[in-house]
Amino acid sequence: MSDSGNCYKVKLTLEQLALPYHWVEVDSARGETRSLKFLAMNANGKVPTLALEDGTFLPESNAILNYLAHGSRLLPSDRLDHARVLQWMFFEQYSHEPCVAVARSILRYQPSDSPRRAELPRLLERGNQALSVMEQHLARTPFFVGGRYSIADIALYAYTHCAADGGFKLTDFPAVSNWLERVKAQPRHVPMPG
Amino acid sequence: MSDSGNCYKVKLTLEQLALPYHWVEVDSARGETRSLKFLAMNANGKVPTLALEDGTFLPESNAILNYLAHGSRLLPSDRLDHARVLQWMFFEQYSHEPCVAVARSILRYQPSDSPRRAELPRLLERGNQALSVMEQHLARTPFFVGGRYSIADIALYAYTHCAADGGFKLTDFPAVSNWLERVKAQPRHVPMPG
Repeated sequence: MSDSGNCYKVKLTLEQLALPYHWVEVDSARGETRSLKFLAMNANGKVPTLALEDGTFLPESNAILNYLAHGSRLLPSDRLDHARVLQWMFFEQYSHEPCVAVARSILRYQPSDSPRRAELPRLLERGNQALSVMEQHLARTPFFVGGRYSIADIALYAYTHCAADGGFKLTDFPAVSNWLERVKAQPRHVPMPG
Repeated sequence: MSDSGNCYKVKLTLEQLALPYHWVEVDSARGETRSLKFLAMNANGKVPTLALEDGTFLPESNAILNYLAHGSRLLPSDRLDHARVLQWMFFEQYSHEPCVAVARSILRYQPSDSPRRAELPRLLERGNQALSVMEQHLARTPFFVGGRYSIADIALYAYTHCAADGGFKLTDFPAVSNWLERVKAQPRHVPMPG
């Protein structure tokens, strides 16, 4: 789904590793992730889902990133650095995406009189907490782990770079804003297709 | 925090790998994860946080499990199997814990007239969806990845085995119930300390 940050993560990793792939658009807003055909690929009914050459499927954006980046410059092989990459990826899925991406989704896809707008103040509060945690860390280091660009940066870039769509003010987070520019300047960077 | 499934995951992994450790109780319900001392270890203010011998800290339960189990029988070294372990661990943190653990937390820690009880119907609906995804998978395989017990099972066992505390009926999920028994029968299994 082109407008999904979770799908964009996968596209960015594939492009930066110069891996050949075929993108199949699946629109969860139209219920396409709940079809029997899609649920047979991913019983949890979510994009992205990676179809492998052996006919099996791998869901969960951050698991896909770990699979694709295995053995590459985008994933440290050192045991502790690898664990720190995972630390930030779990932070992204638990403390960041459910606030920053969900606020964006409500503002983009729900009608302006939707009762879900009532969730926005809490999502903004918690999303700002997540951005503050990133700000503290990025004030001390250029990238999330080991001073080098990795899939931890890709995972957090996906929904942070478009956080303004959810009502977040990135100008309040200068270290995060500078990091966004560093990510954008990486070789073979591509913008979000949505 | 002894009553936290996320902390129990770490204890179970340490015990099953026979690793020496020192457990420091931190009670988030009493605000102990928001102290300056704790935030210096984990700016995100959450338990568990692993203190390493080099004086650094590693937060995020599932990142800690990957770190501890590196090179052990609890974490497959095969590239795709490792990615599938991560798939189920991200599923746990995104689709399972925020429903199954949060419902339990509301029922155990909030007063019976708490407005947060209004969240319960939606948490039960989404938690049951997560349990259904597990049920479909476990009807075909004894453990989550590669037919062998791994940290993916530990991560999902932590809050599934006490899901009844959150109002879930595990008898509706026979394959999940049988898997819980298989996990409990693993060597060096320890119960949740809470």
